[in-house]
Amino acid sequence: MQLSDLFTARMREAAPPLWGPGDANGPDRIALAFGDADPTMFPHKDLIDAVAEVLATDIDGALNYGPTYPGLVRVAAERLRQRGISATEQNTLICYGSSQIIGLLPQVLIDPGDTIIVEAPTFLGAVMQFRRSGARLVGVPVDAEGMDVDALETTLAELRAAGVRPKIIYTIPTFQNPTGVTMSLERRRRLLDLAITYGVLVVEDDAYSDLRFRGDAVAPIAALDTAGWVIHLRTFSKIFAPGVRLGWASGPQALIDRLAMCKVEGGSGPLMTRVVAQFAQDGRLDTHIADLRTHYGEKCDLMLAAITREIPTATTVRPDGGFFVWLRLPPGISATALVPVAAQHGVDVLAGPRCFADGSGDEYVRLAFSYIPAAQIGEGVARLGAAIRSLALARL
Amino acid sequence: MQLSDLFTARMREAAPPLWGPGDANGPDRIALAFGDADPTMFPHKDLIDAVAEVLATDIDGALNYGPTYPGLVRVAAERLRQRGISATEQNTLICYGSSQIIGLLPQVLIDPGDTIIVEAPTFLGAVMQFRRSGARLVGVPVDAEGMDVDALETTLAELRAAGVRPKIIYTIPTFQNPTGVTMSLERRRRLLDLAITYGVLVVEDDAYSDLRFRGDAVAPIAALDTAGWVIHLRTFSKIFAPGVRLGWASGPQALIDRLAMCKVEGGSGPLMTRVVAQFAQDGRLDTHIADLRTHYGEKCDLMLAAITREIPTATTVRPDGGFFVWLRLPPGISATALVPVAAQHGVDVLAGPRCFADGSGDEYVRLAFSYIPAAQIGEGVARLGAAIRSLALARL
Repeated sequence: MQLSDLFTARMREAAPPLWGPGDANGPDRIALAFGDADPTMFPHKDLIDAVAEVLATDIDGALNYGPTYPGLVRVAAERLRQRGISATEQNTLICYGSSQIIGLLPQVLIDPGDTIIVEAPTFLGAVMQFRRSGARLVGVPVDAEGMDVDALETTLAELRAAGVRPKIIYTIPTFQNPTGVTMSLERRRRLLDLAITYGVLVVEDDAYSDLRFRGDAVAPIAALDTAGWVIHLRTFSKIFAPGVRLGWASGPQALIDRLAMCKVEGGSGPLMTRVVAQFAQDGRLDTHIADLRTHYGEKCDLMLAAITREIPTATTVRPDGGFFVWLRLPPGISATALVPVAAQHGVDVLAGPRCFADGSGDEYVRLAFSYIPAAQIGEGVARLGAAIRSLALARL
Repeated sequence: MQLSDLFTARMREAAPPLWGPGDANGPDRIALAFGDADPTMFPHKDLIDAVAEVLATDIDGALNYGPTYPGLVRVAAERLRQRGISATEQNTLICYGSSQIIGLLPQVLIDPGDTIIVEAPTFLGAVMQFRRSGARLVGVPVDAEGMDVDALETTLAELRAAGVRPKIIYTIPTFQNPTGVTMSLERRRRLLDLAITYGVLVVEDDAYSDLRFRGDAVAPIAALDTAGWVIHLRTFSKIFAPGVRLGWASGPQALIDRLAMCKVEGGSGPLMTRVVAQFAQDGRLDTHIADLRTHYGEKCDLMLAAITREIPTATTVRPDGGFFVWLRLPPGISATALVPVAAQHGVDVLAGPRCFADGSGDEYVRLAFSYIPAAQIGEGVARLGAAIRSLALARL
């Protein structure tokens, strides 16, 4: 008899963990591939102060067994209500990062073979999580106004004609990962109408909306929803620090209840939930977010200027916020071929196909301006430009 | 169309989350029901120092995206090797508390209707987790030497005769929750032999073994295992603080790999894993554990003396470590009837049936000496004694 006999059928085939240490930026290279936060902006002293304050006032609550701190649930729900989303403490769930929520959603909704509609391109972590669940992923194109809702309608109609009711429409409507574009209000309304008409859950991943550099906020899809077809995801990763691993979801109560059931470890840590809530008090978090907006906006503009200067034949859509610039490469340049050449030139970028569920998009790369120091941005883009020119030259 | 149409069959029926704020000790009552740690023993200053040290030396690693800190994996594996378990950094997985591991194990191993063998009585959280997975739970009695391995053999033979190969034997061999008893070495060997013979995974939950007040350590079952049929679970909850939510598992690589796959959120927090590793350096953790042993040992003895004094007709097995005393009530007293009467008398205890998969055990209550101040133990047991006498009187 073997131990492996005991595994469920689904578990017979091993697959590597979704998130591992292998997929990092290279050493001594300028790191534009991944959307890590800028470590120089982490509120170092405020964090230590918040830990000390929490332990001074509630050491038993913070360090013993117990649920997610209700005070953080209040903070989370209040941040949603400020955007017009009718969130309550009951239908708001704190998780270990919004990636945990993206990982749990298929456990509630997906049987193998079920269909999930994603943007093309989209967040590569979501693609990995959804694919792992056995879902079939169908992509809908994104243009400068966000997901193409005409194409979405066509896709929904075709799926219905084929007898398929998709389970999820996954969208990042604001400062989309990877394109940086923001979906217009009109499209948001139309997407919601289509979701309701076709009976599909909208998963609105709103990781970046707090980091707006310019322009006016657009209402979240969840704020337009009165029928209960949207779950809205947020995270403290971009506005405080990824390392605290805290995000939240709010949406239909029956769905939130089931996500909480699937979160087998229970709450999300009495200590860190108190520390983040402490930091969010007294306006410290909002002051910090204002600083981040300025900082990331300057870095974004530096990157756009460098692209214009160094890679004039590439095209981008100027983002109004977020972490990323999505670069359409000069004609004839393959992202897959470019990435190793760029690494040789001392810069890491993400190949477009990593962001498409169907592996297309080889004419794109994603550049993160979030992580590296502002002073390195020009040099990073210059190295990418040199890599592109060397690749073009090699093709002659 | 309704949102609930989208839920998988398994998710149609809602159930409350496993761990919620509802199941706490009552206000103004002496809290003997749950095994919370003693908050006066939390290493308050060391924890703040560790946070400051980590942020001073590795703020990017601690607060950005990233895996579980490899340094903590080293600490965890080394602590197992010190007990003779041949753990490596590859087959050691850090999770959000060992309760997360207990929650993930069924995802790898259990199809609805599969059988899990548990001790009778056992840890109520494990019963809840296993039952949620759709497993059928079969209890094997525990006596003063731990799980009755003769009864285990009979159970395994009967199940085999019925065509059932159980998936898991779940045991807490050292300072068992709730009985406090420790399985003898001979029984550990026999349990392992039976597991190998019948092809069943042993889940050895070793939450308490560091907290030995007296007597000599007994080898973990995992240290006896050369065939790869044991997964060993440990936790920082009892030796540092439950609120950091960190535990670990080590066992067969194929199983560890699959648990990591099911841990959809990835690592277990770059910040807290570094903070706990920092605290474990330089002998701080071991010094702290030595203090805890003395402290909890004194509290245990206070409780045993109070029981002898206040409830002389109850019987217990004297624990050599851990958090609990398991009390066999005087003849004719029902734990289920006693719990509300005890609450009226100002003391919370756990009714025995909460710890039995089949709901039996109404002649027992579990008393935790871990949480409350030493000075309250005598009064808590006295209140319980008064509650027992008032219940006995009411039956006359």
